[in-house]
Amino acid sequence: MSRLLFKGNDAVIRGAILAGCRAFYGYPITPASEVAETAAKFFPQAGGTFLQAESEIAAINMVFGAASTGQSTMTASAGPGISLKQEGISYAAGAELPIVVVDIMRGGPGLGNIAPAQADYNQIVKGGGHGDYKVIVLAPNCAQEMCNLTMQAFELADKYRTPVVVLADGFVGQMMEPVELPEPVTDIPPKPWAVDGTKKNAENLITSIYMDPIELEEHNLKLQEKYKKIEESEGLLEELHTEDAEVILMGYGIVSRILQTVVEEARSQGIPAGLLRPITLMPFPEKRIKELAETAKLFFVSELSNGQMIDDVRLALEGKRPTKFYGRMGGSVPTTQEMFEQVKNIYHGLTANN
Amino acid sequence: MSRLLFKGNDAVIRGAILAGCRAFYGYPITPASEVAETAAKFFPQAGGTFLQAESEIAAINMVFGAASTGQSTMTASAGPGISLKQEGISYAAGAELPIVVVDIMRGGPGLGNIAPAQADYNQIVKGGGHGDYKVIVLAPNCAQEMCNLTMQAFELADKYRTPVVVLADGFVGQMMEPVELPEPVTDIPPKPWAVDGTKKNAENLITSIYMDPIELEEHNLKLQEKYKKIEESEGLLEELHTEDAEVILMGYGIVSRILQTVVEEARSQGIPAGLLRPITLMPFPEKRIKELAETAKLFFVSELSNGQMIDDVRLALEGKRPTKFYGRMGGSVPTTQEMFEQVKNIYHGLTANN
Amino acid sequence: MSRLLFKGNDAVIRGAILAGCRAFYGYPITPASEVAETAAKFFPQAGGTFLQAESEIAAINMVFGAASTGQSTMTASAGPGISLKQEGISYAAGAELPIVVVDIMRGGPGLGNIAPAQADYNQIVKGGGHGDYKVIVLAPNCAQEMCNLTMQAFELADKYRTPVVVLADGFVGQMMEPVELPEPVTDIPPKPWAVDGTKKNAENLITSIYMDPIELEEHNLKLQEKYKKIEESEGLLEELHTEDAEVILMGYGIVSRILQTVVEEARSQGIPAGLLRPITLMPFPEKRIKELAETAKLFFVSELSNGQMIDDVRLALEGKRPTKFYGRMGGSVPTTQEMFEQVKNIYHGLTANN
Amino acid sequence: MSRLLFKGNDAVIRGAILAGCRAFYGYPITPASEVAETAAKFFPQAGGTFLQAESEIAAINMVFGAASTGQSTMTASAGPGISLKQEGISYAAGAELPIVVVDIMRGGPGLGNIAPAQADYNQIVKGGGHGDYKVIVLAPNCAQEMCNLTMQAFELADKYRTPVVVLADGFVGQMMEPVELPEPVTDIPPKPWAVDGTKKNAENLITSIYMDPIELEEHNLKLQEKYKKIEESEGLLEELHTEDAEVILMGYGIVSRILQTVVEEARSQGIPAGLLRPITLMPFPEKRIKELAETAKLFFVSELSNGQMIDDVRLALEGKRPTKFYGRMGGSVPTTQEMFEQVKNIYHGLTANN
Repeated sequence: MSRLLFKGNDAVIRGAILAGCRAFYGYPITPASEVAETAAKFFPQAGGTFLQAESEIAAINMVFGAASTGQSTMTASAGPGISLKQEGISYAAGAELPIVVVDIMRGGPGLGNIAPAQADYNQIVKGGGHGDYKVIVLAPNCAQEMCNLTMQAFELADKYRTPVVVLADGFVGQMMEPVELPEPVTDIPPKPWAVDGTKKNAENLITSIYMDPIELEEHNLKLQEKYKKIEESEGLLEELHTEDAEVILMGYGIVSRILQTVVEEARSQGIPAGLLRPITLMPFPEKRIKELAETAKLFFVSELSNGQMIDDVRLALEGKRPTKFYGRMGGSVPTTQEMFEQVKNIYHGLTANN
Repeated sequence: MSRLLFKGNDAVIRGAILAGCRAFYGYPITPASEVAETAAKFFPQAGGTFLQAESEIAAINMVFGAASTGQSTMTASAGPGISLKQEGISYAAGAELPIVVVDIMRGGPGLGNIAPAQADYNQIVKGGGHGDYKVIVLAPNCAQEMCNLTMQAFELADKYRTPVVVLADGFVGQMMEPVELPEPVTDIPPKPWAVDGTKKNAENLITSIYMDPIELEEHNLKLQEKYKKIEESEGLLEELHTEDAEVILMGYGIVSRILQTVVEEARSQGIPAGLLRPITLMPFPEKRIKELAETAKLFFVSELSNGQMIDDVRLALEGKRPTKFYGRMGGSVPTTQEMFEQVKNIYHGLTANN
Repeated sequence: MSRLLFKGNDAVIRGAILAGCRAFYGYPITPASEVAETAAKFFPQAGGTFLQAESEIAAINMVFGAASTGQSTMTASAGPGISLKQEGISYAAGAELPIVVVDIMRGGPGLGNIAPAQADYNQIVKGGGHGDYKVIVLAPNCAQEMCNLTMQAFELADKYRTPVVVLADGFVGQMMEPVELPEPVTDIPPKPWAVDGTKKNAENLITSIYMDPIELEEHNLKLQEKYKKIEESEGLLEELHTEDAEVILMGYGIVSRILQTVVEEARSQGIPAGLLRPITLMPFPEKRIKELAETAKLFFVSELSNGQMIDDVRLALEGKRPTKFYGRMGGSVPTTQEMFEQVKNIYHGLTANN
Repeated sequence: MSRLLFKGNDAVIRGAILAGCRAFYGYPITPASEVAETAAKFFPQAGGTFLQAESEIAAINMVFGAASTGQSTMTASAGPGISLKQEGISYAAGAELPIVVVDIMRGGPGLGNIAPAQADYNQIVKGGGHGDYKVIVLAPNCAQEMCNLTMQAFELADKYRTPVVVLADGFVGQMMEPVELPEPVTDIPPKPWAVDGTKKNAENLITSIYMDPIELEEHNLKLQEKYKKIEESEGLLEELHTEDAEVILMGYGIVSRILQTVVEEARSQGIPAGLLRPITLMPFPEKRIKELAETAKLFFVSELSNGQMIDDVRLALEGKRPTKFYGRMGGSVPTTQEMFEQVKNIYHGLTANN
């Protein structure tokens, strides 16, 4: 195993190639551009295809087409581009196509700026496209996970025939860190449902049209069944000092790195804090939150947004425990000290109240 | 006042013209096509512009441009087209442009079918585009409201400089009903922030770019302040027999019409049911739900989806009262009898448990 | 009549509005951008529509659509944009739609540069689009003609139901000169063939499809008949000292302005030169060239290209008289002295040979 | 060598793959669709890339991009699509990129129909795009040549770094004939001017921008020098009984097949006819026409158009010999008998006059 220094965005492509992906269609946008740039360099070298499409919409539809033929395929963008891809993502979900989409979040709404943010949570997790569908969402917090979770994204996409989104902030995408490259995947499962233009699969049909309402309802029920199975089986999370924590800190991506330090600092000052980091945002660690609500007294959520994931925390808590939120918007990232002050004040408020 | 028979989709355009809108940019898609068709007929007659754009993306960006010049302007589509417009909607929210978007929901995900559905709730209310933004969402349940709420959409868009979505299902859009046309609006407020190509407003700037994180954060805080003000001031709802209801039925659009009948039927059979219909989905009637939770024992939510609005009901209830859900997907609409059975069984379960 | 100072590009729009055009769809490109810019300013003031389209292709198709409804309508661009419009122009020719396209030529091929050129002659006059079709081509050489010939373009477009191109070089487009604005056209003829969405013309059909080969051949024969009639009736040219000229200088647009001076200079030095300037390039002054070939001994053609119009001169001469060519490419424009040297040498070669 | 039955459109792709082309970007359109369809099947099998682009414009720009990296690459379409590609072709000519474009001509203008035609001659040979540029044009008249000339197209494209067009009519594209597949090309020359994203060619620049007029003029002079060299070296033609012919029949593509039979029939009836078939339309056999004009008395040209190539014949003849034209438009193809009648009448007119 080799250990090399990579930007998170580069590590995504390393992971994709190791996972067997050989077809990248995209369009550059800061802070996701290195994903396309690295793909342009390494996909051809791996005997694959890199194509800069006419537009974001063209790119996602090429991904749809390539996935239909059984190719492991992906695209990447940031907020504005991801918005343009919503139709295509809904189509891929409806047609049950395994595709991987990488969103390196930047400041919004609109053009916003190119600094890191986490305000696309609702768009990705709640469904920015039309119709009842869900996508699996993986939220790496370091370059190593950018590589590994991208690999896992392809595995899950194939396993469930569903779009998978790797949701990272511009910080994790731009940060350079050592990465140990895993062994390449050599056993990509066959895709007997795909169409490759030959007679042997001429009967296969890749579509999201079901004109008859009853058929479309059955198709939707099948999709919902699949999402339920994913929610039961594929949740990933990381915990730190949660066993006896009175305050559970929650955050994903770059925020979780800050919260790790804050938990250690808090513990060193006698504050019984713990960290619950969702690695998968769909499935969301609802069950674990409910369990921790038995012992913890308060949930503190921090996001680089006005608060989007916090609704999922509140839905899990069902009013059992209070929540507090601290967010920054527009590209500002809280310092460890700033975050610690928030936690300290909240804890003192909590103990004062009791 | 004249009383004429209109399809809901036609009533939208009648309302738009009465509200002073003179610029429609769109692209036809079932079941929203009559909106464009009626616009093509009546906008030119009113001295306005109808333009069928190259694509949904072109259309929303023309709306952006027209709104920038101070025009009252709109577009309309169904699911797939609305997904394509997510970038443009986020841009308009970021640039604080008053635009009106009409979504006549059909079965999804993907191409789905052209039958009525309500599965774009998350897309519209939770934000299908990128970044922290919200749009005002109005949910008519009859042709008269298709007209009146479209008029109100323009008023609210101008009042708050924000996108407003009229969110209707294909049923309400296609249904023909008598409509009393209101008086035309004659006092559209001036828009001193707009740019019209002359020197007098050359200093105005319509943009959503704020490259500096601190500036973008301030801009976002201003937007959030605006959304808060909207939530405090602009909520609309309709209630029926809620004062002593033990079971509160909730639904919007065509579902609320079914629930009205079900409430009357339930009452006639001794079941103390009431209807709470959100007319605005953003703002959501969170406060009223909390109030009713004091007396009601259970909330029954029905949607033409797998359950999207129900999360907002649950967020409002914070676990205080249980919720039950009944939905149909893919274009099927429950019959009154089918819905009543659901309510009856739930009520009996409730009383049996006590 | 008012006399004002205008750029050629501005004069185009003044002429368009005086001609009754009220619908401009375009996309900016140097050196044609002022056409769109001036349209953006004056079309709305005249109660018309200015729309910056998503692309050049979108613009020409909007022009197609607007013309179908009977609107006087236009677009403008430079080389790359005009290339993108070739499909649309062929469609408009096939559907017999009166549209006006302005081409302000710049250096090519490809991106080339933004300096003046005349290398789009073949594209416009010989047919850059597919199929047997022709367009009327007007070639102004001053700001006054930019205004007047644009007005005439609309008149001819309506008279023959055909696309008309105003073909100017970047020099004529950018040059500022006094213009006397003509009286506005007040008697635009009715267009009973158009479709306006009402029942009274519901039977009209605007199309270029004729699936049956015999029908399509008949349609083509009708078009050819029309082009023949145009060639017989609509030719415009300007002559200077041709009656006794031994050397006929030919050039259009900015080149003709240089040749005027050269003819005067030549005459002052005893060289019997004359100028034949085609104002219409289609129709081309074939008949007049044949007549002058009776007395003139040589034809000198100059273009800002490698020689494109010269083929039409040679086709008219049928070998009766020799031709000489002098061209500059890439944005360079010959000086009067440079051009005069060419003519002098050619004349001396001619007399030496005799 | 294997001998198999192919449609002309299929043979194009067989030839492309044998020539080493591994990247096809296109969009289907009748009667060219089998080119894309066969490419979709065989390019992936050959380890290459087939991509159905978002649009014709996207396709030609992908071809531009792929060619920039040194890939042998191609696209194919019919009239409307070829019109949309004019900008891209001009760009490729300006950037001196070796690309191959296949045009399977159908009836026009506009949508026209899907029957065979030859009315894109001017568009392809005279330059449908902007600026002074030319493309090499090969005009196969059978399935075997569809294969062989496509192979040659790639060779010429590389040899001169220039776009090459294979110009065929729908008849030749759709006709099924036996084809002997040549040996694959194994010695594709290196392309040291290309860019592949590595450091070793980082100094290469693929562009058609030359902002300075003098530089752009020099670039154009270099292009013209290249075109001159092509015209001197690469002309291809076929002759039949021309040595003592009084009437020279000229036609390309499917028309030349009819004229072959007509020549034999004419000879059997004592009419001294001969056939001159241009296989390359650029270079055009101007020199050979001039030679034959010494002995032949008349040139008869036939095209599936209103007469486009005939202008090049007339430019070559310079009035020395008369020309006659017979054409059909809109998809009709003359029968041998119909064509023979034309030739017979013309010959009798010729002898009667003498």
